[in-house]
Amino acid sequence: MDISNLKKELEFQKIGRELHAFIGELYPLCRSITGNGLRRTLKVIQGHIPITLHEVPTGTQVFDWTVPKEWNIRDAYVKNDQGRRVIDFNASNLHVLNYSIPVQETITLEALKTHLYSLPEHPDWIPYRTSYYKENWGFCLSHNELLKLDEGEYEVCIDSSLQNGSMTLGELYLPGEMEDEVLLSCHTCHPSLCNDNLSGVAIAVFLAKYIHSVARRYSWRFLFIPGTIGSIAWLALNEERTEKIKHGLILACLGDSGEMTYKRSRRGNAEIDRIVEYVLRTSGNPYEIEDFSPYGYDERQFCSPGFNLPVGCLSRTPHGRFPEYHTSADNLEFIKASKLEDSFSKILSILSALESNRTYKNLNAKCEPQLGKRGLYRTTGGRVASPEDEMALLWILNFSDGQHSILDIAERSCLDFNLLKKSADILIEHGLLAEE
Amino acid sequence: MDISNLKKELEFQKIGRELHAFIGELYPLCRSITGNGLRRTLKVIQGHIPITLHEVPTGTQVFDWTVPKEWNIRDAYVKNDQGRRVIDFNASNLHVLNYSIPVQETITLEALKTHLYSLPEHPDWIPYRTSYYKENWGFCLSHNELLKLDEGEYEVCIDSSLQNGSMTLGELYLPGEMEDEVLLSCHTCHPSLCNDNLSGVAIAVFLAKYIHSVARRYSWRFLFIPGTIGSIAWLALNEERTEKIKHGLILACLGDSGEMTYKRSRRGNAEIDRIVEYVLRTSGNPYEIEDFSPYGYDERQFCSPGFNLPVGCLSRTPHGRFPEYHTSADNLEFIKASKLEDSFSKILSILSALESNRTYKNLNAKCEPQLGKRGLYRTTGGRVASPEDEMALLWILNFSDGQHSILDIAERSCLDFNLLKKSADILIEHGLLAEE
Amino acid sequence: MDISNLKKELEFQKIGRELHAFIGELYPLCRSITGNGLRRTLKVIQGHIPITLHEVPTGTQVFDWTVPKEWNIRDAYVKNDQGRRVIDFNASNLHVLNYSIPVQETITLEALKTHLYSLPEHPDWIPYRTSYYKENWGFCLSHNELLKLDEGEYEVCIDSSLQNGSMTLGELYLPGEMEDEVLLSCHTCHPSLCNDNLSGVAIAVFLAKYIHSVARRYSWRFLFIPGTIGSIAWLALNEERTEKIKHGLILACLGDSGEMTYKRSRRGNAEIDRIVEYVLRTSGNPYEIEDFSPYGYDERQFCSPGFNLPVGCLSRTPHGRFPEYHTSADNLEFIKASKLEDSFSKILSILSALESNRTYKNLNAKCEPQLGKRGLYRTTGGRVASPEDEMALLWILNFSDGQHSILDIAERSCLDFNLLKKSADILIEHGLLAEE
Repeated sequence: MDISNLKKELEFQKIGRELHAFIGELYPLCRSITGNGLRRTLKVIQGHIPITLHEVPTGTQVFDWTVPKEWNIRDAYVKNDQGRRVIDFNASNLHVLNYSIPVQETITLEALKTHLYSLPEHPDWIPYRTSYYKENWGFCLSHNELLKLDEGEYEVCIDSSLQNGSMTLGELYLPGEMEDEVLLSCHTCHPSLCNDNLSGVAIAVFLAKYIHSVARRYSWRFLFIPGTIGSIAWLALNEERTEKIKHGLILACLGDSGEMTYKRSRRGNAEIDRIVEYVLRTSGNPYEIEDFSPYGYDERQFCSPGFNLPVGCLSRTPHGRFPEYHTSADNLEFIKASKLEDSFSKILSILSALESNRTYKNLNAKCEPQLGKRGLYRTTGGRVASPEDEMALLWILNFSDGQHSILDIAERSCLDFNLLKKSADILIEHGLLAEE
Repeated sequence: MDISNLKKELEFQKIGRELHAFIGELYPLCRSITGNGLRRTLKVIQGHIPITLHEVPTGTQVFDWTVPKEWNIRDAYVKNDQGRRVIDFNASNLHVLNYSIPVQETITLEALKTHLYSLPEHPDWIPYRTSYYKENWGFCLSHNELLKLDEGEYEVCIDSSLQNGSMTLGELYLPGEMEDEVLLSCHTCHPSLCNDNLSGVAIAVFLAKYIHSVARRYSWRFLFIPGTIGSIAWLALNEERTEKIKHGLILACLGDSGEMTYKRSRRGNAEIDRIVEYVLRTSGNPYEIEDFSPYGYDERQFCSPGFNLPVGCLSRTPHGRFPEYHTSADNLEFIKASKLEDSFSKILSILSALESNRTYKNLNAKCEPQLGKRGLYRTTGGRVASPEDEMALLWILNFSDGQHSILDIAERSCLDFNLLKKSADILIEHGLLAEE
Repeated sequence: MDISNLKKELEFQKIGRELHAFIGELYPLCRSITGNGLRRTLKVIQGHIPITLHEVPTGTQVFDWTVPKEWNIRDAYVKNDQGRRVIDFNASNLHVLNYSIPVQETITLEALKTHLYSLPEHPDWIPYRTSYYKENWGFCLSHNELLKLDEGEYEVCIDSSLQNGSMTLGELYLPGEMEDEVLLSCHTCHPSLCNDNLSGVAIAVFLAKYIHSVARRYSWRFLFIPGTIGSIAWLALNEERTEKIKHGLILACLGDSGEMTYKRSRRGNAEIDRIVEYVLRTSGNPYEIEDFSPYGYDERQFCSPGFNLPVGCLSRTPHGRFPEYHTSADNLEFIKASKLEDSFSKILSILSALESNRTYKNLNAKCEPQLGKRGLYRTTGGRVASPEDEMALLWILNFSDGQHSILDIAERSCLDFNLLKKSADILIEHGLLAEE
């Protein structure tokens, strides 16, 4: 069985629910770009697929960047003068400015307010904020809660540590027939946020699980890494491997109710760009294609000019374009099992097409071969049963000159990619076609 | 006189009627891919142009195909139990499944029906069916006639033969100044069917007749051959000549009332593709341009990837898109003298542009030459009589850098191809331009 | 200060009025392709910028052309039999067919009429006519005046001379850091006509004056030359210099109330073509872009195939498309100070972008550099103050691979050219970017 069979085999209804349940399992963990929340996340993933963990020590120079100190947090709160926790890390890990340094003091409301973050335009939502590279502390809370704070003294406690340690990268390499690789990468640094990016993490885990179980032409590499510094570190530590990466996708924001959006690689017309566009165009659903821009997720690093890898980014609603983005409203209700399932199914179609796409050479290139004497004219119930089946054979034969892949022929003929692949297989069986 | 003069010389009104009369002469003959009906057709053509006949013996291997046995037929009928011919080959040669093996027996209506073909959706028309490569016999009849057949015994007779013999190809080569060739090909295998393809045959014959009579830059090759097996055989037997073919057209379905349709060569932007599109676009009539697809007439073979010749297909309504296609309704009434004439006139414009199109070099390429001192500024009644005449001179001078043909300049300037050609001739006379 | 600063410095309101006043000063002079009217015009220009005058003697062979005799005129009139001047050169220098040979005779109205030119469709306007290369004499007058001429004898006097002399070319060369040149050319041969082309002359003079006063990367060449024969002579006499011309514009018809029109160079996608289109597209005003055609102003010569220089033509309403063209109605009222000013401002933007456009190389091409540690993340009041400022840095970094100029990045990112240039300068300061 290969990847192209997976789609028929899998029971998608169940997968949507499984993906959602898996996200529910990871949701409470307080992740960051380093620390035990991140490690615990990767351990949960190891319950499904055999990823390897790499610990990159604090202070490691990775191109222009330095791996920061490791951050861990046990508790955090703001208590009012009656001793009541008016902001409590235990209620939501978003309450703490991610990477807050430890603090323990009693201050006035006025002083406290310089460390508080809220969203007046969405007064019930807690914002998500970080301060990785500038030492700071703070709390995030809903604007309504902020307004309820009375004048007075507040006890502030952040029981965190920021010390030498390491950053943890998770990686799974699934060797295939070829050393050429497909890269799938997602960021694992966001705490209790579902669409951004537990949706990407969960889909990557389940893709890996299924691809692990089937025959593969390409080798496959899955990365579960912190955003920006994680991809920079991986690239710095694996620079020599990058030339094997022939196609790649960043997976993020794949559970919301929006339509699919694909952001092209910097190359713009890489095979991955054309295959994603082909699959989305023929999916029957609306979709958006955007050109590369140097802002977004880790495609920024993979597509930096010194690498320029053919890596695009696949989302439903892209980062920053849904109001729930980077707030407590990006929660388990915001993402839908049916949408996770739809994303999963479309990505599987993309990956299956990647595995299937190749270029052939017609071994009888001068005039058409006589299909009739080989039983390749349409017969009821045969493998060539319809006029479309016959046309697919003729298209493959005519354009298999070593210059046109199945994708090229699918785009030009408007025939189905899988029908063309099946036709190529039949022609190979009859000695009329060979892989280029 | 060269081809470009022909158009002015010919009396087109008369040609439409001549073409139709010539088709009427060929209509009754029972053609097939081999046999005496095909030979008689070529003999009639020899009454107009000196084509050579090539006999390719049964069993000759031509690429992946084998020339089949020769088929001949003398009579065929189905008689009812009163001895009346209820289906009679003499009434229409379409009544016999083309390539039917001989049969002589008496069978029940039920047994007979497994050998009968009709068109319920067009109950008055006789369908045209063949069985070249699978031995079979059968009769085609109108559905209304089929419904009239009573239960009972029928005497079935097909007085045909299927024996070793040969396939006949007709060919005319008209040498020109250059060895480079223009190929015009039509299929001669269809029996009493007018648009498909006696229209193509008749137009090719009359084109050849006129081109034969004038000076030619290119050499011209006309093929009158059975569809598929004929072109495959010609290519197999003339493989070394194919590199001389610089432009080509398949001519078919040129007499119906539809607008012109051009199907591009596999190359898509060959000179023939661009010239046909230019002529149709500037004709003032609606037209369709289609990309190459590996289904249709003999362009399938000429454009197979091992040859990839610049051969397009010119029709009015293409094969399969008119209901009369491959039925007895594709008859002498279906094709119109005025449409044959229109097709003929447009093809002559295309061929004339092919002969005229070339690339020049401005011999005074630095700044404009002084046209005034050569009398090449507009003068009343002179050869440069209008602002457009002057512009044509300037366009030819500016773009004749060895990179732009007249066609290129016509497309870019929106000036008339023939005006530009005339301007180039004037500039050559004045020593300002030379053929590249 | 460089060219990019000029725009902010100049008080455009004043420049519009200055341009109009300068045109008013040149308007009365009777210019032609040779002679003292032309020389006086160039002397007036020398009052503003230090142009050099070249005298090219009559009879000089310049490519296919010969410099004509020098024409000068002192007076011209037609007197009726009462001795009244019914046509008088002193009233308008357009009254005389430019390059009229001397004449002194008394003739009938009928004989006179063969030498008179008028515009029946604009009966109040005097047409502008020339006869440079065919010896002739004539008068131009309004059609209403023509109709008033009674039968009778007329005294005709043209006190002109057509003798060996020279043609005068004006030229200013402003050396810059590089030998590569920008060429700005305008024609100085038209007598009392304002849009065509005193508008182009005046704008060129004022551009030269300001560019003279600032630092320059390119060397700049300004030509003030007669149309056609002037550019042909300049090219013939300066052929070896033409390879330094990297960008060029012909300036003409820049004062009318129409929108800007740019006619591309023959190359079609030269840097000047793309920069003009970029500036016009982002100007917020309507504009037209036209492909090159071999008719118009001196781009005909600069873009002849033997030179094929990247020289476009910038106008408001192009020659021949406003009814006042080549008539006495192309006068000081027809051109507007506000439109001259608008043209001037847009051309300055074009020239500034030309000077600024270059291609860089990201010196930290593998992954993004850490902008935060360099203070290059957005800070209130800093040089990177807005999200757009940050995006500009990221775009420059990502696309500075030695293949993309600022113009390329501006077109692709839709960010402002000048913002991108500023961002590049900041990155150079921080050692992250270098000029390619």
